[in-house]
Amino acid sequence: MTVKWARGGPDLLVALDRETGQLGAQIQDQLRAAIRDRRLGAGERLPSTRQLAELLGVSRGTVVDVYEQLLAEGYVESAVGSGTRVAVMPTPAGFPTPAAPESSRPVEIDFEYGIPDLGSVPLTDWSWAVSEATRTLPTAQLGDEVLAGSRHLREVVTSYHRRVRSGVAGADDAVVVSGFRQGLTFALAALAQHGIRRIALENPGPRDHDVIARRAGLEAVPVAVDAQGLDVGRLRETGARAVLLTPAHQCPTGVALGPARRRELIAWADDVDGVIIEDDYDAEFRYDRQPVGSLQGLNPARVIALGSVSKTLAPAIRLGWVLAPQRFVTGIIEEKRLSSRGAPGLDQEALALLMETGRFDRHLRRVREIYRARRDVLAAEVEMAFGPGQLHGLAAGCHALLHLPAGSSEPAVVAAAATLGVRVNGLGHYLVEGSDPEAFPPALVLGFGNVSEHQIRRGIRAIAEAHTMWLPCPPTSPRNFEVTRQ
Amino acid sequence: MTVKWARGGPDLLVALDRETGQLGAQIQDQLRAAIRDRRLGAGERLPSTRQLAELLGVSRGTVVDVYEQLLAEGYVESAVGSGTRVAVMPTPAGFPTPAAPESSRPVEIDFEYGIPDLGSVPLTDWSWAVSEATRTLPTAQLGDEVLAGSRHLREVVTSYHRRVRSGVAGADDAVVVSGFRQGLTFALAALAQHGIRRIALENPGPRDHDVIARRAGLEAVPVAVDAQGLDVGRLRETGARAVLLTPAHQCPTGVALGPARRRELIAWADDVDGVIIEDDYDAEFRYDRQPVGSLQGLNPARVIALGSVSKTLAPAIRLGWVLAPQRFVTGIIEEKRLSSRGAPGLDQEALALLMETGRFDRHLRRVREIYRARRDVLAAEVEMAFGPGQLHGLAAGCHALLHLPAGSSEPAVVAAAATLGVRVNGLGHYLVEGSDPEAFPPALVLGFGNVSEHQIRRGIRAIAEAHTMWLPCPPTSPRNFEVTRQ
Repeated sequence: MTVKWARGGPDLLVALDRETGQLGAQIQDQLRAAIRDRRLGAGERLPSTRQLAELLGVSRGTVVDVYEQLLAEGYVESAVGSGTRVAVMPTPAGFPTPAAPESSRPVEIDFEYGIPDLGSVPLTDWSWAVSEATRTLPTAQLGDEVLAGSRHLREVVTSYHRRVRSGVAGADDAVVVSGFRQGLTFALAALAQHGIRRIALENPGPRDHDVIARRAGLEAVPVAVDAQGLDVGRLRETGARAVLLTPAHQCPTGVALGPARRRELIAWADDVDGVIIEDDYDAEFRYDRQPVGSLQGLNPARVIALGSVSKTLAPAIRLGWVLAPQRFVTGIIEEKRLSSRGAPGLDQEALALLMETGRFDRHLRRVREIYRARRDVLAAEVEMAFGPGQLHGLAAGCHALLHLPAGSSEPAVVAAAATLGVRVNGLGHYLVEGSDPEAFPPALVLGFGNVSEHQIRRGIRAIAEAHTMWLPCPPTSPRNFEVTRQ
Repeated sequence: MTVKWARGGPDLLVALDRETGQLGAQIQDQLRAAIRDRRLGAGERLPSTRQLAELLGVSRGTVVDVYEQLLAEGYVESAVGSGTRVAVMPTPAGFPTPAAPESSRPVEIDFEYGIPDLGSVPLTDWSWAVSEATRTLPTAQLGDEVLAGSRHLREVVTSYHRRVRSGVAGADDAVVVSGFRQGLTFALAALAQHGIRRIALENPGPRDHDVIARRAGLEAVPVAVDAQGLDVGRLRETGARAVLLTPAHQCPTGVALGPARRRELIAWADDVDGVIIEDDYDAEFRYDRQPVGSLQGLNPARVIALGSVSKTLAPAIRLGWVLAPQRFVTGIIEEKRLSSRGAPGLDQEALALLMETGRFDRHLRRVREIYRARRDVLAAEVEMAFGPGQLHGLAAGCHALLHLPAGSSEPAVVAAAATLGVRVNGLGHYLVEGSDPEAFPPALVLGFGNVSEHQIRRGIRAIAEAHTMWLPCPPTSPRNFEVTRQ
């Protein structure tokens, strides 16, 4: 549609609201919109500034400013003798609205792994700490931070790691990151720089670590986990010079790496000139005794320890740290510098204050009791529904493994639970890519960090119901027939 | 040294402070330390729990707990019939203290590029916003966020981008990141996934972008910048299908991409099925008129716009965004998911509140006046010291380019300024790797965001002095002789 720039024409295009003022901005916005929408076509000549000023009843200077702005932005062009014309504009792309997710029964009870109790996040303390940080952080530290991260936080975190996790590291061994995954990505890149080509991963183990390792240029090889944790004998056979593991509370089986295995692992690292990456997650939550110390304390020259507050405070406070032998620290910092510059300086100071003032410890004590109570309810409820001895990995952390009776179909139980409003993942969800799910017993991973005691009771009953819905039955069973017909 | 576990022996090792309590923890810490330090050697047999309890005057249960803990941590081992023995421990690595930086004259005046006025960071507003966020953010959003980032922030940021930057993007086109570099890293990875192999970079241009491009698997090719910004004719010759540029205020020359160039660039992108990555930094600070609109608004299907608050608020609030055509959004989100999970949810909500309530705009208005005053002082001072017409790129932003008289040695002036306590970088600091510095005129990049008016006056005088110190003189000049002797 061609707009006729004759008397009255521009009204169609530019409707000025004289009450709100900013007439220049109004004209400009509307001309821009008109050009984008093709209401003003390419090559079309705009009225002179004098004409438009008269037509709209504004000062000529206002229109001159508008034209100059549009000229600078490329919407119009100006040639001596031919006035101002609409420039050739590309066709704007549509922004399709993403399709809505398929409707299914909403999740009412969520046994998703790895979410802490979100209702207990110490928000008042956090708000206090940020406020303190804005008040006390030296102005210069509001700029680009020291690349390794806030020295204050590195001192506090390593002191915490020495005190609570029996670690051996100082501020110069620490790099602040924005959570576990970022720390892992940096650490793996540093390994690759040191010529390490293959890394062993626990199988089953945390999700995506195989993908993350491959992205760093490493070959990921799975190593089996048994009741003592990672099988170090098999680790030796892989020829890998690095291993990534969750020794305090294996994800997802819940076992702690046994004392003999810990020593074997340290010996392996020395023998192969290797590196252990310790995912020190949820070690703080051990119920029957103190947490098992960090592997890092056993062999600081060969262990890179990764920690974060995603499970101790909340994922929404995205801070973590890498404690690494000196030979890797430079590479980790360089990765950080080039890929993100790291975590917010104010939040780092806030976390340092939270830990230093004892608020962090107090919070841990408080939630530990909450998790202990949930664990007890979970254990009792599972025993009622599935009999004794089916629940494993309860000594620490916020998840446990429920062994399903032999012959159960893990995916079928997961799907049936979903129809009852319960989200839960099977053990198969945690297998390294390429593993044969049939080689593992059917089991469910029950995260109970963010599930109330009442929800645990209802959820376990629903899972038991889901399980009976899919019990394998003899071929002649009418029940089986019904299921097939569904 | 072998500790004799005879009467009195353990006192040497375990000194209990009965006032502070926690006797078990004290014993444990000291045994751990002794094992690490080799004061207790591998294979050495520990006293029985009964013996040690008697020796130390604590309950036997306390010692049992200590031994079990050390056993679990791998410090000791226990074999039926032979009691508890110290396990074989690896030699701990020393953690060398990094060498102190060489002492040189401290920086008194810092013309470093890209630092905003740190004294003006709206800390009270930020503290308010975080507090509001802790009060109002739904509990569920304290968990792992939606991968694209807070929907609230994406809505607010795209609305801001439409309003202030003439952009065309909605929340579904936005991904929240932890600053510009992270956004760039993700965007480049998404380009690589789409088969783009070569990216053109402005030369001179922002530091490290060549390295970052190569890390993403792209070949980086430099393209010259002139008084109209990036030379699009030369861009065409490179055969690149992507370009990264700073159109609003070129870094470091300070020129704005001319209107004709903007259109040529858009046409180039359409012709080669290409992508423009727009580094939309410091566009908010234009002094003589409104900011030039974002390229993204001209061709949303071909422009990825990167923004952050590092220059508008502070680097210590590490938040940014990527606005991308839909075909790249999924790849960018996947990069984010695997490499870091992104930015803190509470901070994202805080920033949304800061922008939504007008506090962000108010802050920009306030600092714009500060920067305008500094700019005026800088212009006057440089004219006084170097004559008219030497300072370029002052129309916007917080840095300008000072052309040094022909024949000046840029590195020599930079070094001489440093001896006077002034940090400033030469243009050569911003050349793409492999460029010939001789091909560029000698010039200094003057960042004035975080330098007071008083410091600007002193700093420019010092630079002028540094320049005269290194003026090229005829060989017979006594002055030259003196300089050589220094």
